[in-house]
Amino acid sequence: MTVSEAVRATWSEASDAVGDLKSDRVRAVLEAQILSGELPPGTLLPTEPELSAALGVSRTVLRDAVRALVARGLLTVRQGRGTMVTEPSDGALADAMVALLSRSPVTVADVMDARIAIETMLVRLAAVSGTTEDWDALALRERALIDAIEAGDERAAHREHAAFHAGILHATHQPALALMLNPMNKIALLTGTASVRRGTTADWNLEAHRAILEALRLGDPDAAEAAMRAHFEGLEGPSSSVGLLERPFAEAYFASP
Amino acid sequence: MTVSEAVRATWSEASDAVGDLKSDRVRAVLEAQILSGELPPGTLLPTEPELSAALGVSRTVLRDAVRALVARGLLTVRQGRGTMVTEPSDGALADAMVALLSRSPVTVADVMDARIAIETMLVRLAAVSGTTEDWDALALRERALIDAIEAGDERAAHREHAAFHAGILHATHQPALALMLNPMNKIALLTGTASVRRGTTADWNLEAHRAILEALRLGDPDAAEAAMRAHFEGLEGPSSSVGLLERPFAEAYFASP
Repeated sequence: MTVSEAVRATWSEASDAVGDLKSDRVRAVLEAQILSGELPPGTLLPTEPELSAALGVSRTVLRDAVRALVARGLLTVRQGRGTMVTEPSDGALADAMVALLSRSPVTVADVMDARIAIETMLVRLAAVSGTTEDWDALALRERALIDAIEAGDERAAHREHAAFHAGILHATHQPALALMLNPMNKIALLTGTASVRRGTTADWNLEAHRAILEALRLGDPDAAEAAMRAHFEGLEGPSSSVGLLERPFAEAYFASP
Repeated sequence: MTVSEAVRATWSEASDAVGDLKSDRVRAVLEAQILSGELPPGTLLPTEPELSAALGVSRTVLRDAVRALVARGLLTVRQGRGTMVTEPSDGALADAMVALLSRSPVTVADVMDARIAIETMLVRLAAVSGTTEDWDALALRERALIDAIEAGDERAAHREHAAFHAGILHATHQPALALMLNPMNKIALLTGTASVRRGTTADWNLEAHRAILEALRLGDPDAAEAAMRAHFEGLEGPSSSVGLLERPFAEAYFASP
């Protein structure tokens, strides 16, 4: 996909208006066009000489602006193919969340508390808004989690476990909430549980997941919340987690497998 | 504050290991040191020639890495003063959230639904965990909101209104939750309410804020949740909001004052 004439015209206008902090201005112009959809995902930007001429800035200034947008996950530079508008993803949001938590004094216990607050809210919403298809999909995840544990495949078990919890978020049928909270959920899962070594099915607390699913199928928010709380109480059990909860978030996060 | 000898030593090690995508490697090295606190806020990095020599990369490669970290809010370049590690802030998280919502098909109504889910959760937690000091601080905000409206200062009114809701988040005494949700709250407030013109005290729904505060003082989560829900039902009233809820998030967000 290439750039429309209308967008090219705004570049030529911007080229007259570019002020002092040139690369910030250029970044702001391109960013607004990406966020508004004028430059949709998959758009191939003109070559560096062409684009810098269109915007009336040096190639160095353009390069700085492009680099900033790459860092924010809005552009991607492919060697030999040029610069392209990315498909939307929550990678930059997850990175920003990890950076903020890492640079703060919060502990793993604080992140776990946040996760408990959020997941008990979500499971209540899901109990009210979820559909039979949602519960069938969750049941498949629960089955896959059991299979992975029985096969001794810890990596697959973590993946299916994360998918089970993401499935609850999906079952709220709240698209904005899902976008904002999905990275948060992934981070909390990684920190709170991936650093805890789990060997046996008992460590994985499978009954808790079964109980959550049963309460959801009944459409009972109180039972679903109670099952979710029981799930978190179980988490504090494994002896390998001793001492983990008091550690700073950054230390535990960067140490996880 | 300058860079420690220990950190300088890791740079010289990294200079041997720097691989193909050099600026990504350099970015990753500096990023990990900022997130872990080895490079604390306020640290002044060596000059460009000095740092590129220490890391064994060209100035162009270093400049790319620095620009990426500036875009992620971890470094700041001050003309004539050099490159400094920033104080932690949630600016990058808010930017990433706005970008993700803007590039998705969600509407203002979807963001409002997310805000209702989050704020009813928060007000329940606050009712249980908040202190007298928290409620006194909230009462001051409520008073300042009334004063601003009576003085016809709409900008101050929006600021105090946001501060009132941030005060509820603070009263949960959950530091990780506060870090993660504060930018979300700001965005939702901007989108959901700032684009609605408010002239009179009735439009501001002051009784709803008073009722929330009273329920919080009583430590009653059910009453607090009910008051918060009433607050949101009131929001759909003003005639100026007609048509706003169905608009895409990006359109409403970038149009807000």
